[in-house]
Amino acid sequence: MLFSARAHQALSSLAAVACLATAFAFPARAAEGMWTLDNLPRAQMQQRYGFTPDAAWVDTMMRASARLGGGCSASFVSPQGLVMTNHHCITRCVEQLSTATNNRMASGFLARQRDEELRCPGVEVNRLEAITDVTDSVRAATAGLQGAAFQAAQDSAFAKLTADCRGAAADTVRCDMVTLYRGGQYQLYKYHRFSDVRLVWAPEESVAAFGGDPDNFSFPRFCLDIGMLRVYEGGKPAEVRDFFRFKPAGAQAGELVFSVGTPGMTQRLLTVAQLETLRDALALQGLPGLAEVRGFMLQMARSSDPDLKRLAMGALQGIENGLKVSQGRLEALMDPALLERKRLSERALQDFVVASPALKAQVGDPWGDIARAQRSKRSLELEYGMLEEGRAFGGTHFQTARTLVRGAVERSKPNGQRLREFNDSSLPQTEARLRARVPVSAAFETARLSWSLNRMRSVLGADAPMVRQVLGKQSPEQLADALVRASRLADPAERQRLWAGGLPAVQQSDDPFIQLVLALEPSARALRTRFETEVLAVEREAAQRIAVASFAQSGKSNYPDATFSLRVSYGDVQGWDEKGKPVPPFTTIGGLFDRATGAEPFALPASWLDARPRLNLAQRMNFTATLDTIGGNSGSPVLNRQGEIVGLLFDGNQASLGDAFYYNEAQNRSVMVHPGVIVDALRNVYRGDALLAEMLGGR
Amino acid sequence: MLFSARAHQALSSLAAVACLATAFAFPARAAEGMWTLDNLPRAQMQQRYGFTPDAAWVDTMMRASARLGGGCSASFVSPQGLVMTNHHCITRCVEQLSTATNNRMASGFLARQRDEELRCPGVEVNRLEAITDVTDSVRAATAGLQGAAFQAAQDSAFAKLTADCRGAAADTVRCDMVTLYRGGQYQLYKYHRFSDVRLVWAPEESVAAFGGDPDNFSFPRFCLDIGMLRVYEGGKPAEVRDFFRFKPAGAQAGELVFSVGTPGMTQRLLTVAQLETLRDALALQGLPGLAEVRGFMLQMARSSDPDLKRLAMGALQGIENGLKVSQGRLEALMDPALLERKRLSERALQDFVVASPALKAQVGDPWGDIARAQRSKRSLELEYGMLEEGRAFGGTHFQTARTLVRGAVERSKPNGQRLREFNDSSLPQTEARLRARVPVSAAFETARLSWSLNRMRSVLGADAPMVRQVLGKQSPEQLADALVRASRLADPAERQRLWAGGLPAVQQSDDPFIQLVLALEPSARALRTRFETEVLAVEREAAQRIAVASFAQSGKSNYPDATFSLRVSYGDVQGWDEKGKPVPPFTTIGGLFDRATGAEPFALPASWLDARPRLNLAQRMNFTATLDTIGGNSGSPVLNRQGEIVGLLFDGNQASLGDAFYYNEAQNRSVMVHPGVIVDALRNVYRGDALLAEMLGGR
Repeated sequence: MLFSARAHQALSSLAAVACLATAFAFPARAAEGMWTLDNLPRAQMQQRYGFTPDAAWVDTMMRASARLGGGCSASFVSPQGLVMTNHHCITRCVEQLSTATNNRMASGFLARQRDEELRCPGVEVNRLEAITDVTDSVRAATAGLQGAAFQAAQDSAFAKLTADCRGAAADTVRCDMVTLYRGGQYQLYKYHRFSDVRLVWAPEESVAAFGGDPDNFSFPRFCLDIGMLRVYEGGKPAEVRDFFRFKPAGAQAGELVFSVGTPGMTQRLLTVAQLETLRDALALQGLPGLAEVRGFMLQMARSSDPDLKRLAMGALQGIENGLKVSQGRLEALMDPALLERKRLSERALQDFVVASPALKAQVGDPWGDIARAQRSKRSLELEYGMLEEGRAFGGTHFQTARTLVRGAVERSKPNGQRLREFNDSSLPQTEARLRARVPVSAAFETARLSWSLNRMRSVLGADAPMVRQVLGKQSPEQLADALVRASRLADPAERQRLWAGGLPAVQQSDDPFIQLVLALEPSARALRTRFETEVLAVEREAAQRIAVASFAQSGKSNYPDATFSLRVSYGDVQGWDEKGKPVPPFTTIGGLFDRATGAEPFALPASWLDARPRLNLAQRMNFTATLDTIGGNSGSPVLNRQGEIVGLLFDGNQASLGDAFYYNEAQNRSVMVHPGVIVDALRNVYRGDALLAEMLGGR
Repeated sequence: MLFSARAHQALSSLAAVACLATAFAFPARAAEGMWTLDNLPRAQMQQRYGFTPDAAWVDTMMRASARLGGGCSASFVSPQGLVMTNHHCITRCVEQLSTATNNRMASGFLARQRDEELRCPGVEVNRLEAITDVTDSVRAATAGLQGAAFQAAQDSAFAKLTADCRGAAADTVRCDMVTLYRGGQYQLYKYHRFSDVRLVWAPEESVAAFGGDPDNFSFPRFCLDIGMLRVYEGGKPAEVRDFFRFKPAGAQAGELVFSVGTPGMTQRLLTVAQLETLRDALALQGLPGLAEVRGFMLQMARSSDPDLKRLAMGALQGIENGLKVSQGRLEALMDPALLERKRLSERALQDFVVASPALKAQVGDPWGDIARAQRSKRSLELEYGMLEEGRAFGGTHFQTARTLVRGAVERSKPNGQRLREFNDSSLPQTEARLRARVPVSAAFETARLSWSLNRMRSVLGADAPMVRQVLGKQSPEQLADALVRASRLADPAERQRLWAGGLPAVQQSDDPFIQLVLALEPSARALRTRFETEVLAVEREAAQRIAVASFAQSGKSNYPDATFSLRVSYGDVQGWDEKGKPVPPFTTIGGLFDRATGAEPFALPASWLDARPRLNLAQRMNFTATLDTIGGNSGSPVLNRQGEIVGLLFDGNQASLGDAFYYNEAQNRSVMVHPGVIVDALRNVYRGDALLAEMLGGR
């Protein structure tokens, strides 16, 4: 599944820190591209489909779509704040609203009236309200600077711009800096924040994620991967003006469709040197690390403790998804043709620069600067991942303690001088997370921490200073057990007390996670400074110069890399040829029943087995289209020319796993839930008449 | 640890099938090389060390050294059949002689008199008796043949040669075909078989493998990685003429030393195309697969069931070792300098061939033939690994069933027409394995099978014909549970009945593993035939032609790749520089106590803590030397010029993990147990006076 951008980032954050542009020498081909709303490829769309979006169309795209703070796409589907996204985007909420005896992942959930809707802890919905270009002021703030000075000036400019944008309305406004073309353009995206988000409908996981990991990123496919939320304001359903209407008949083969959503992150503009760093990190650390934690969770999922089993199975979903994504990315990066193509386009841009002495004087050799930064990156990234990104510390407590300790220090500084995750624009979400009442299983925390401490020692070696400092004379297992046993951070009141108490409260705390974070803080901060100065700042500054060259070469005829900002992709409903055999674009409910074996993950829930006689087996269930999307697009509405919902995007096919680096229209497909099966299921399986009426009411 | 060759092969069998030679354009440098006894680099040894081995020296090397059938090296150390090897080479035996209440891995074992020595199920010791060159007759048998015909003729020639060599003495003679220079030379190695092998001494695992996985392949190091066995004949200790004597003072820094043993497998003569195939398989399948099973076993090792915990911890040792080896190999293969060096030497040999029309006419383009075979290999190897190599079927029952089914069919054929693992030369060991009384834990079998079936589905996809055939409508978990529950293959009597009963007994069996193997046999055999014809036979035949070119270029001035046949390496006791800091070559018992934390795997056993006052803390414990070795060399005696034991090889340092592909004298080191610590431990920790007297008796 095209998992949430945040989960995806967390899983591949060795990649996430890369931040750079390379040649746009090959302009985007038909159907390729994740386009910003202010730079849609109108000429291409007109030429291929005879369709040119007008201002009203674009405005509706923006105001009726949304994103989940956790990293998925979503859309408004009724005037009463009903929000549609994927089931796999809200599993965390459904798990948190579950217990061993009332497992809503297994049983599903449907609120039959408003007062049955349940609040999702810590979830927020953002709706984009305005886009402002601030390239000039960001450039002015960093002009002539390099390294740490560049980074500090940019962080400070970002903090000021976002704070000014947000003003005093922190509860309802969120402003994000959006870096486009890896530094070619800077924009301010202003969002309306909905922070009271409630669960309306989640089908049973067994049908939402039918086929589980084996079917993930494959097609033919049979998933009802939908989740319905509702945003509230002032204790009442929020009233929204713009929303999308359902078209239960969907779209036909060959029909033009659009996806609107927030693709999380692509690396199409990285330099060859950056791609090589990425490839090696993925092969030697990223993929084996995910595989190992998958094995660990697989065995935990065989536990006789039902609570641990449930939690492990929940965690597996994201891990297995990340594993498939990483595997697909590595396959793409190990394909010599991909790097060769990148090398050619990079050389073409370099030749273009050299041919113009004025441009050369302005641009210099950013590729060489970036290549040198890769050496630092390779020598630092293992420890950086373990210590500063906290990969050594699985579970939730370490990150909570880190937030409390750093938050106490950072909040006492002026906004522009803080670590960026503590600037005013980010604090509201942080505070919401600390407040959220999320049940914590001590056994699960201990298991995850124990594994990650073990992996830290494997990766860094038993004699690494960090490993010696963390473990002392204890084994990973002993330490994890001792830390979790003595911590009180599972209690929201304790978290609140420490957050409110600031630095004195934190320093006086005897919580072992707080003490661990405090002890590691000097080395963690020193490492962060080195990494940002020697790697990130160099990459970012050089990327700006590559963008200058690219714009000189081909203007903005290309699209920027994905950055969890709103994008439109277009294409048409289409299957593809797999090794010479055509894969048709549609599946049906009948196919779902044919594929069901009765054994997990191919076991249908009782509700569907009971409903079979009432269902239209010929009803289309899932379908594919040539939409260029990636993780973070999960939950995107797929629309026809009229802006009607003809699909709910939830996945890509196997070939699409290379999407991070290039888009291949012949092979890459997005995978959607058909609107007809949503209607059929609500009517005939779940008897969700009120919800259905609301969804279809706008028609 | 330089794990047993067999374990290593099993873990990296995607690599094991490669079988080819490339340029020897760069002659072996000083200290590099795993030399056959009949082609020692006398001139180099004389030039560097002023030492030339004479015939008697060589003969003693051969007759006093040994190998374990399972894949390790060993040596005779007393006239009463006492055999020294590593603890990690006999863990399977120690585990099999353990129960949850008498865990000899944890408590160690020392037989204080002969009648306390315990038989190791299924273990055999081989002593090399004679080497015969049979290159001409093998060449004659396959002259002019290609593909399947080449392979069949070679298999048949091998079977006949080994059967003739062995004669009627199957119980005491073993003959192996040894392919050198990947087909440049074929030799027949005749061994004396000792099949009654008993455990004499195994220290506690906590000191044998002190530092566990974190310290594995690192140095400084503190392991008493020794195991003592005794071979029996006719119910009495075997009398041996040739054995090595201990020199408790060991060797000094800079002193010339030799290792004699059976390195399992190197890939130094593969072509670039083969190395690329290997690299991609390792990155995309091998390493993640091992990491996943490590995670699975790590969580199982946290089980509250002591038996499962013990078995999981035992399995972890091999898995974690394999993971480190694979990681090191992948790092080497992803180093662009390595492949570039290989490319240069390959091109040099190709140029040499092209420069001589006669040679060109004889050799053709073996590199191109091999490159084409790689395409077949890449398309077949996943399914080949799962189905024919049985990776889909973890645990022991499937392989047992496969042996019973295939054995029944193959034994009815003439020797020369059988699958090679069932020719007369291989049958005695197979039969011994089937007879061995090895306790089987149903829970452990089920867990491993369940994981591997899951992985089969992940790797091949839910719709692969093999996956559909194996799983049907069951989940991996359900199927594993049903198969293990209903099988009787854990019972040696049942295995014996089926082996003795031949095809009728097998076909009438209702054992579910037998039935599964029978059902898969047509597709498994078809796949094997394709793989052997399209990949292995092409590689082997072409490799012979590369060897012709190589010998024409530089004769036999180089050494062949390792093939689990007896080799001598030479070098000197030496540390190395690690990032500019010198690593001294010796550690001491005092260092062991300093490193002990009390927490696994850095917890010393009570015996050592008690003995501390009696021990000489300055006694050297482990040391390093520039010996070129690899997995399979574990257990090799390390000798001085006089042929005295000055070390027991058990590992290499981190850099040595690239040894499969090239040897770097500046960085790569073998790691040994010092003889002094063995004596000190027997005297002051274990009070093994009788054993010590026997070991030192020859002095």
